[in-house]
Amino acid sequence: MINSLNAAILVIGNEILSGSTQDANISFIAKRLAARGVELTEVRIVRDVETQIVGTLNDLRSKYKYVFTTGGIGPTHDDITAECVSKAFGVPHVIHQGVRQEMEELYKARGVELNAARLRMATMPEGCELVKNPVSGPPGFKMGNVFVMAGVPKIMQGMFEHVETMLEAGKPMLARTVRCNQREGDIAEALGTVQKAYPDIDIGSYPHMFQTPSLSLILRGTDEAQLAAATAEVAALVKARGEEPEIV
Amino acid sequence: MINSLNAAILVIGNEILSGSTQDANISFIAKRLAARGVELTEVRIVRDVETQIVGTLNDLRSKYKYVFTTGGIGPTHDDITAECVSKAFGVPHVIHQGVRQEMEELYKARGVELNAARLRMATMPEGCELVKNPVSGPPGFKMGNVFVMAGVPKIMQGMFEHVETMLEAGKPMLARTVRCNQREGDIAEALGTVQKAYPDIDIGSYPHMFQTPSLSLILRGTDEAQLAAATAEVAALVKARGEEPEIV
Repeated sequence: MINSLNAAILVIGNEILSGSTQDANISFIAKRLAARGVELTEVRIVRDVETQIVGTLNDLRSKYKYVFTTGGIGPTHDDITAECVSKAFGVPHVIHQGVRQEMEELYKARGVELNAARLRMATMPEGCELVKNPVSGPPGFKMGNVFVMAGVPKIMQGMFEHVETMLEAGKPMLARTVRCNQREGDIAEALGTVQKAYPDIDIGSYPHMFQTPSLSLILRGTDEAQLAAATAEVAALVKARGEEPEIV
Repeated sequence: MINSLNAAILVIGNEILSGSTQDANISFIAKRLAARGVELTEVRIVRDVETQIVGTLNDLRSKYKYVFTTGGIGPTHDDITAECVSKAFGVPHVIHQGVRQEMEELYKARGVELNAARLRMATMPEGCELVKNPVSGPPGFKMGNVFVMAGVPKIMQGMFEHVETMLEAGKPMLARTVRCNQREGDIAEALGTVQKAYPDIDIGSYPHMFQTPSLSLILRGTDEAQLAAATAEVAALVKARGEEPEIV
């Protein structure tokens, strides 16, 4: 399926690459993009290293309609995402006066000092648009086709509510799952025949170990009628082997 | 830190990019590589699309010492990883007679037919080395600097036992975590000063929402003495603010 409404996620953070933190943002964004009809085509996870972030950003933003970054926008020395976006776009990295003012008011109310470290969270690529942060205060931003969000899942999810309103909407990706206990190798040929007959439906086969049902056949596509027809054919090939599949 | 013993993971599978499956392999491999002293520098997740897999494989294998792929080596139509590796390396994609014979014996004992779909799991790049699969039968393989493993976590983990023995060993990455309830913005400047004093120790700051302790300061490096000294300095800056941190 060719889709011009496509996207990539860039996860920025040593904590994921060291295995100390399990990413929770990719699957959240993936599901929301699918519902909006935006195809998530690629994900990259990189270290907190400027050259790697800038190079990857420039590669992804030239290839995809939208790029979503998570991580690296806090007040500490390892939070370098915003500066890297400014470098990638070749624009000045400047204090956003509106954000500065909001942060001053917010922190005054909390009795917290707006020091140099916190001011870094108001420093952004010149010309960016803000992304609202309903959870913790300092906003994310949109620069060109790049949306910059926090790495903490609750904050990222809050920001995504606003990000979503800035995206074009395509045809929502619909999905059906046929669950059964067939061995993949027994149904592979018949399944491949159904896939060939429905080139616009994406059919995936996912075995599970030590689980019942042991196999999930997932069908995805934007055309409800085609999806229903392909699902019926997949269900039929399971039934032909004497098993009643579960369709969800 | 510059490390010539570096690596990338290539996760292959629409199920991750659609959000229907949460990846569990990245953090497993990341931890094992850290313990072996191999730096995981990058992760990419791509679709089950030949051009994307081949292009990404060629990019990663030219950049990194090791590339680990997960997913796409089963018997169904969406399992195209092995073919893509052959294409990336420009070698014939052939039935491995040793694997074929083992699979014949294995499936005969199980009363399962070795049909054309299952034979695809014995079809590999000419000249590859096998990676043992102690869990489910059909092996993975190593082609050049690329290790090809299953996507099902239990099977991948079994294969990794063998993969690990084929990797050079570097200095194991050691880690300490200083847990506390400081606000990032309050300690950011002092933390940055410690980071500058210890350029070979990687210090990351990770806030947690709705948790106590609310902040993890993670220090990583290969030199035990430097790591201990940097950890003591980070702990001291928390103590200076009147809190006794937890060090793990």
